[in-house]
Amino acid sequence: MTAVHTEKFTNLQKIFYPGSIAIVGATRSVGTVPYDIVNNILKSDFQGIVYPVSPREQFISSIKCYKYVTDIKDPVDLAILVFPSSVCHLALEQCGEKGITSVIIISAGFREVGGKGVERENQIREIADNYGISFIGPNCLGVINTDATCSLNASFARRMPEAGNIGFLSQSGALCTAVLDYARAKHIGFSKFVSFGNKADISEIDLLYYLKDDPQTKVILLYLEEISDGPGLIAAAKNIINESGKPILAIKSGRTVEGASAAASHTGSLAGSDEIVGAAFEQAGIIRCDHIEGMFNIAIAMTYQELPHNNRIAIITNAGGPGVLTTDAVIHEGLRLAEFTPETTEIFRRNLPKTANIKNPVDVIGDARADRYSIAVSHAMKDDGVDGVFVILTPQSMTDIETIAREICAVAADYKKPLYASFMGEADVAAGIDILQRHKIPHYSLPESMSRAYSRAYRFKQHLRTASRPAPVFDDIDISRAHAILDAAIKAGRYYLPEAEAVQVLEAYGLPVPAHGVASSEEEAVALAGKIGFPVVMKVVSDDIVHKFDIGGVILNITTADEAGDAFRSIYGSVSEKMPEAVIKGVFISRMISEGEEIILGIKRDPSFGPVIMFGAGGIFVEICKDVNFRVAPVDERTAEEMIKGVKFSAILSGARGRVPKDIESVKKVIQRLSQLALECPHIKELDINPLLVLDEKNGCYVADTKIML
Amino acid sequence: MTAVHTEKFTNLQKIFYPGSIAIVGATRSVGTVPYDIVNNILKSDFQGIVYPVSPREQFISSIKCYKYVTDIKDPVDLAILVFPSSVCHLALEQCGEKGITSVIIISAGFREVGGKGVERENQIREIADNYGISFIGPNCLGVINTDATCSLNASFARRMPEAGNIGFLSQSGALCTAVLDYARAKHIGFSKFVSFGNKADISEIDLLYYLKDDPQTKVILLYLEEISDGPGLIAAAKNIINESGKPILAIKSGRTVEGASAAASHTGSLAGSDEIVGAAFEQAGIIRCDHIEGMFNIAIAMTYQELPHNNRIAIITNAGGPGVLTTDAVIHEGLRLAEFTPETTEIFRRNLPKTANIKNPVDVIGDARADRYSIAVSHAMKDDGVDGVFVILTPQSMTDIETIAREICAVAADYKKPLYASFMGEADVAAGIDILQRHKIPHYSLPESMSRAYSRAYRFKQHLRTASRPAPVFDDIDISRAHAILDAAIKAGRYYLPEAEAVQVLEAYGLPVPAHGVASSEEEAVALAGKIGFPVVMKVVSDDIVHKFDIGGVILNITTADEAGDAFRSIYGSVSEKMPEAVIKGVFISRMISEGEEIILGIKRDPSFGPVIMFGAGGIFVEICKDVNFRVAPVDERTAEEMIKGVKFSAILSGARGRVPKDIESVKKVIQRLSQLALECPHIKELDINPLLVLDEKNGCYVADTKIML
Repeated sequence: MTAVHTEKFTNLQKIFYPGSIAIVGATRSVGTVPYDIVNNILKSDFQGIVYPVSPREQFISSIKCYKYVTDIKDPVDLAILVFPSSVCHLALEQCGEKGITSVIIISAGFREVGGKGVERENQIREIADNYGISFIGPNCLGVINTDATCSLNASFARRMPEAGNIGFLSQSGALCTAVLDYARAKHIGFSKFVSFGNKADISEIDLLYYLKDDPQTKVILLYLEEISDGPGLIAAAKNIINESGKPILAIKSGRTVEGASAAASHTGSLAGSDEIVGAAFEQAGIIRCDHIEGMFNIAIAMTYQELPHNNRIAIITNAGGPGVLTTDAVIHEGLRLAEFTPETTEIFRRNLPKTANIKNPVDVIGDARADRYSIAVSHAMKDDGVDGVFVILTPQSMTDIETIAREICAVAADYKKPLYASFMGEADVAAGIDILQRHKIPHYSLPESMSRAYSRAYRFKQHLRTASRPAPVFDDIDISRAHAILDAAIKAGRYYLPEAEAVQVLEAYGLPVPAHGVASSEEEAVALAGKIGFPVVMKVVSDDIVHKFDIGGVILNITTADEAGDAFRSIYGSVSEKMPEAVIKGVFISRMISEGEEIILGIKRDPSFGPVIMFGAGGIFVEICKDVNFRVAPVDERTAEEMIKGVKFSAILSGARGRVPKDIESVKKVIQRLSQLALECPHIKELDINPLLVLDEKNGCYVADTKIML
Repeated sequence: MTAVHTEKFTNLQKIFYPGSIAIVGATRSVGTVPYDIVNNILKSDFQGIVYPVSPREQFISSIKCYKYVTDIKDPVDLAILVFPSSVCHLALEQCGEKGITSVIIISAGFREVGGKGVERENQIREIADNYGISFIGPNCLGVINTDATCSLNASFARRMPEAGNIGFLSQSGALCTAVLDYARAKHIGFSKFVSFGNKADISEIDLLYYLKDDPQTKVILLYLEEISDGPGLIAAAKNIINESGKPILAIKSGRTVEGASAAASHTGSLAGSDEIVGAAFEQAGIIRCDHIEGMFNIAIAMTYQELPHNNRIAIITNAGGPGVLTTDAVIHEGLRLAEFTPETTEIFRRNLPKTANIKNPVDVIGDARADRYSIAVSHAMKDDGVDGVFVILTPQSMTDIETIAREICAVAADYKKPLYASFMGEADVAAGIDILQRHKIPHYSLPESMSRAYSRAYRFKQHLRTASRPAPVFDDIDISRAHAILDAAIKAGRYYLPEAEAVQVLEAYGLPVPAHGVASSEEEAVALAGKIGFPVVMKVVSDDIVHKFDIGGVILNITTADEAGDAFRSIYGSVSEKMPEAVIKGVFISRMISEGEEIILGIKRDPSFGPVIMFGAGGIFVEICKDVNFRVAPVDERTAEEMIKGVKFSAILSGARGRVPKDIESVKKVIQRLSQLALECPHIKELDINPLLVLDEKNGCYVADTKIML
């Protein structure tokens, strides 16, 4: 299936399901990481054999110690290294000799401390390569597998989490301790829990592929501070989401310049643009989260319950105010209020008190007890016009909170429809919330988080429905012509391709460049202009001139042969006078397009994700409104459409306020061809089309100006 | 001081500090609201006398009952009505006879149920008026005063909150129960706690003024579903904030159309625009919050600690990942990372381990215990380059959470600087968080909430520093001229003022209208155009024509006397031909301004807040980017400046990317004059200036087109 299903996959399987473990560097000194690791493994009811390895100790917790890992006679599936970083390489070398190919390196003091640490990391990498060892870490908290057939807490976390269906992968070890504590209080369970630290060998990508095939894992959570292989991450995410339907939720920290620099100072990595990270995640279908709590809010919705089929929400509340707040939140997140069928309304009318509000949001009134909640919630769940139910409760003096919680759990079990709850308050509602959480009813303290969780789950469902097709590969491309031009320029040591050459590269990729040519005499210019058809534009061609406009090197809107002759002379005259040292190679003449809406397009290279396509509104819009967006190449048709729809200016293109709709179809093609160009011509560092002029529907679009940086 | 400091204020004082209370409608039936009220008052250790009034009971909780309130011989300060709504008016009448002027009406079944309920509410209002009674409610949870000299829980909330410095006012009763439960768990205390229900008499405005002078209240929280007196609310908020410096935090629910309609269905009120609510709150200095949790996040920061003097934050953490997340959040909220002085850095270098990150965010490393936190936090607090300190903790196996919490509390007490904490996780960190909360250290589960709270507190501090001056009243205004034109139009039954008249109204208010006039013959037109100075614009004047352009009724850019004559004839000819029935009153001629940046300005009337001024970018910007903002009149100079800076287009006006800066000063004046016009000419329903053309600095601006709707 994928590259990882090889040796590495087998090694990973032994990391999560070892039959025997050697803990290299074990100790009896309480309060140390090595001690906690041994202790945690023993406490976790591990279904296998533990071999402590220690140069000093005779035994640990009544288990015999070995001086070296090579002293163990029986086979060892997994070694966990907790030695100081300075001697880790020796321990790893011995693991290799012993034939151990699965290792977790807990020890810190590698790349993250810089200097000698970087050397040490390279050293262990080399040893691992030599022996075919796969390892997690270094500088990590360890690995947890809650599967009862293994039951392993090979970490120095305070305790084992509950078993569940969330796979959690984190680059930060310390964050894991907060996550485990948070999850424990909320009865959130995990399938696999991995702190992968410096990812010197096994990366988040390997782990993602592993979790794809892990039957215990339904939802994957990822905390990243650094993306070392952007395209690999995106490919993995697409593969996992499309083939297994498992959602991936991710936090990428270091979003601000200051945050990125804080991350760099403790991971030693360089950051790409946060905007590109967002775009790439969006393309892959990864659900990006801002913080841990937000990630779990969405994760529990997706783990515990069905994905929503549509966005019509019924709200059941015992309080008007919170009903209003929840309605606001529902609408704000792009969901709708469900309309009940006449049958449901009739049941509510007959069974709820007169003062109740039987329209959505349904107010069962402050003195409601469990029976009233039960009727309202069950019939809302039953109603075909309802896709999801939000139950709100405030603790009024007569509210039987725990009974209501139990009723809700019972109703939820009867229907395959999302049911989320918000018991507002904290102390009095705690026991009720605990019941909900134990029964896997997603609970939220805020209607905002509840609505957002539903909305993200619904968007993911839509994403699965409309899985993207691979980007088209156009077969009318003249790659060799484009490469010839680019190679020649690079050979000549140039960093910049003038328009006369840039348009040829675009042409080779089938991009709509207006008719053009280069003339080096007045006669040629007049003839060429006539052939192109008036009006035309003339621009001086010279490697020595950057700002052509300022020295009279550009003349627009030339409408007759006479004007063409005048323009040619004027350009030569003006340029020779103002920049006598500049070598003039001729005059670039192209058809002038003077209508259409201005769009900008471009290619950039991101340090993490490689070629990126930019699309946006031209002119003053890009300057002031920053009305642009980005996607990582390859860009397929659906993505191109999303890019166009993603800018506000698209209202203008699609004909807002009585305007004639513009030729959006042709723009979509341009974006896709540009994507292919970006992938096939890695010579190009940056490319700008500014503007692309988009004509009325079916009339196409034209590149009015372009620049290529090498 | 304010109108409320009269009879109503005295009555309110007796509601919060009664010496004796009659509970009218008391009962011994457990599980009813009347029972809970009596029980809560008795349990709350109320420092006064309670008189239960009941037609049926002999005594309640060993206290003698009276049949009617008039049977009580001693004076009664406060009556609490818990009778069914159908008989409330009788009880209120008797209160009046007894001379009771302070009443709380708990009973529901009034305006909120519509129909008969509305009548009942009018009836009790009338009775209250007759007897000079002030009352809170009906349809409310009641009132709580934690002041030990009174100690009153006159509500049917489950229990009395802790004493504290937050005054809480809520239109929703049910929401109060959730708030009290939430606050109890977090040791958040209240000074006064009021559910004001239908506010048929005492409104949130009266209560705001009361809390202004309440020495126990430091911060005021307000939950509103309906704004009945917008200008009154704004005036009260400004008065309170500017004179007492007490922050007001408010939630206004019903932000979406659906939410507003849900609110209307249970308050029976109509909503204005949510955008205007936001603008009005901003102007008054009210801190708008999205939800209860967000409101308390900010409230505890402002209640427990000093307001921040500046925005330089030091982060102390035992985990790199959360340090990065917190840095992102700090920057995202417009705060900055503090730079430590060399002295602080040296202390960190000497006292923290080698592996620690001694730059901000300071990472004291996972194995940090209280001593390390103590050094880092205290020296960060001491550093003059630091305005606030954020302490982050993750529960690692060796972290002594509670000791660290106690150390933090001790350090915070030594400095007058904000110190906030985030102990990440939930179960293991709970005891530590409890210590922080008891010691009034603001604690947040998310770095996002922590940063937002600091940022809002800091913004409020800035607001207090730059208190706005009253809006100027221009004295060069010709009100009578403006009124004459408007009155005449209204008298004539017109709903629309044509440009020829509209510009005169603007002129009367000193707005920059280009030279203009009306001509009814060709000779007059030529002469007038000459007098005005070319180029000019000509537009047909006729009450019968809406779309002048379409029938040749407008000619632009007339540059000579000959052209002026031609234009006049052309307009008469074309209009007479195409609309022979239209009465032509002449031709409006004005100087044509063909340069400058396009701005739009307008006056609208909001149902809650009255006259509102709109400012925005003109042309395509307003259409696509919605680049506009609103302020409630009167608009002072600072507010006018905020309006201009509040749109993205202001970058263009102030000369972005090498453009010449435009005359922003003149635009500020126009906004303020328009504000005065809006206030002094209530005839005007809507006014549009589209566009206002803004010329280069010191060259002014011009109204290029305007419309007035009556």
